[in-house]
Amino acid sequence: MLASGRTLAPVEVAYETYGRLDDDGGNAVVVCHALTGDARAAGEGGWWRTMVGPGLPVDTDRYFVVSSNLLGGCRGTTGPSSTDPRTGRPYGPDFPLLTLGDLVAVQRRLLAHLGVARLHAAVGGSLGGMQVLQWVIDDPGFIDRAVVVAASSRLSAENIAFSAVGREAITSDPDWHGGRYLEHGTLPRTGLRVARMAAHITYVAAQTLEGKFGRTRRADGPPSLEPDFEVEHYLRHQGEGFVERFDALTYVYLTRMLDYVDPFADPRTAEALRRTRTRFQLTSFDSDWRFDTAQSLRLLEQLRALGVRAEHAELSSPHGHDSFLLTPPGYLDRVRAFLTDPS
Amino acid sequence: MLASGRTLAPVEVAYETYGRLDDDGGNAVVVCHALTGDARAAGEGGWWRTMVGPGLPVDTDRYFVVSSNLLGGCRGTTGPSSTDPRTGRPYGPDFPLLTLGDLVAVQRRLLAHLGVARLHAAVGGSLGGMQVLQWVIDDPGFIDRAVVVAASSRLSAENIAFSAVGREAITSDPDWHGGRYLEHGTLPRTGLRVARMAAHITYVAAQTLEGKFGRTRRADGPPSLEPDFEVEHYLRHQGEGFVERFDALTYVYLTRMLDYVDPFADPRTAEALRRTRTRFQLTSFDSDWRFDTAQSLRLLEQLRALGVRAEHAELSSPHGHDSFLLTPPGYLDRVRAFLTDPS
Repeated sequence: MLASGRTLAPVEVAYETYGRLDDDGGNAVVVCHALTGDARAAGEGGWWRTMVGPGLPVDTDRYFVVSSNLLGGCRGTTGPSSTDPRTGRPYGPDFPLLTLGDLVAVQRRLLAHLGVARLHAAVGGSLGGMQVLQWVIDDPGFIDRAVVVAASSRLSAENIAFSAVGREAITSDPDWHGGRYLEHGTLPRTGLRVARMAAHITYVAAQTLEGKFGRTRRADGPPSLEPDFEVEHYLRHQGEGFVERFDALTYVYLTRMLDYVDPFADPRTAEALRRTRTRFQLTSFDSDWRFDTAQSLRLLEQLRALGVRAEHAELSSPHGHDSFLLTPPGYLDRVRAFLTDPS
Repeated sequence: MLASGRTLAPVEVAYETYGRLDDDGGNAVVVCHALTGDARAAGEGGWWRTMVGPGLPVDTDRYFVVSSNLLGGCRGTTGPSSTDPRTGRPYGPDFPLLTLGDLVAVQRRLLAHLGVARLHAAVGGSLGGMQVLQWVIDDPGFIDRAVVVAASSRLSAENIAFSAVGREAITSDPDWHGGRYLEHGTLPRTGLRVARMAAHITYVAAQTLEGKFGRTRRADGPPSLEPDFEVEHYLRHQGEGFVERFDALTYVYLTRMLDYVDPFADPRTAEALRRTRTRFQLTSFDSDWRFDTAQSLRLLEQLRALGVRAEHAELSSPHGHDSFLLTPPGYLDRVRAFLTDPS
């Protein structure tokens, strides 16, 4: 049963686990991916291989780590491009709208299936960090430590505006077919590419683009309408690669879900958080203009106002929002210290 | 003869003049519009009606003001959607690429036609401000005062990236037809709408969007994939209105021209500016993240290093890049004082 009142069944979940659950079950950690991630968090090709692995902050020698592709995704977990068992065709636009709570509910079932009765920590960045917050709200007694990186309790008007541009590009692509492109044997490649190009600019800092590319041109010829500056080639490459690995419906559904996230507007949030003993560690990065420090500070206030134990630090990093996937100075040590602090 | 070596003839220019040229010809002011402006600067519907008019800083009771649609435009001046006299069809992608110098050359001819032998001032914001700089470089003895607002001497990698997204949206619209959409009886409406929506976010400040719209929804119903938040309706409205009044080819050509602007990379710029007696007034706005204060400060340094008289101020305004079209505190007085200062 979803928050919208609709039912979705069956639900398949793609997941990976790393490490071994202790006999007392006290060492489980769930890792929550961001908008375009998947279950492969650690190891070769893992999206968080700097954070999750043997000897890393989310230490797979020490913790039993669970990482799953989220509901609505396109990397193995049921999502809008999955087959609707009632019709034998892809759900497409008939897939129900989701909430972060729905995503958490699926992960809770997965943890139950794996025999995890409580979490040493839930860890996530960006959308993943927002999901960690939702975890605590939905199950205030389940998690000891919540690590929330480069996230927010709700999107700003500018955040929503960028999402709207991306969805507009996708849904006005003639190959979108009202979201039934799979049945038409097409993909809204152009729209998805443009959406990703626009979004990608918001994931990096202006200074990163400047330092990496500046105004360097690839060729030395006369001016041209074709891509010429290195930053254009880079952006197009990002867009084209994304189209190969990501589903447009999932992109539309998950960005739309995020627009509506606003847990503190719901009185049940305060009720839940007043009871929780979960400790929060928030981290933001000074060059992140998508989820800037002000958004983390607001969440800090919201938590503390309810008596939740929470700390925050802004770290210096030139890499914008994407810093949470990288290793800016102090970042890994900070997460490690929080996860191992017995207090 | 254009900078590219190609010739464009004939060239029509749409222009307006306000006020009367003094007998000694010493009171002429040229006003340069931004990317999507036109010749109608003053009066009802004028894009700079707060700045240009009777009793305003660019005082039409006092100055003879000339405002023209720039070369490559779509508001009366010859541009890529004009008819190519050699073929009887629209130029489309056969229109030559332009430089700011080409735009200045056309304006210089217009001024000669109007009997203007020197300028009391050239005034412009954004692209218009960049054009004012080019004016001085191309004719260092022609202009007494240069007013450059919310501009830059060259685009940043992030600026180019946003332009690239817009052009990608336009040129991958199936109705683009390689730029020959007019011959196909179509318009790349979707691409142009998406391009404008993305660009519009960069014209306003995040705090403006937040203050004006926040997370307010238009309707009270359940979540939906359709536009719902006010900021979405606003952006879409901006995009749709733009498609009605602006040509996609002009948008592609002028944004592309701007990408290549980099006058200080050309040694002739230093040569010209060392000889000029033009005084510059630069203004930036603290919430403008498209052409931020650092870009104005860089231009200030570049000018001063060549012995050019130049001053700069950052004004406080919550309205982002669009501030140059509005009336933030101190702005109009500052421009007025500079234009009337006899020193």
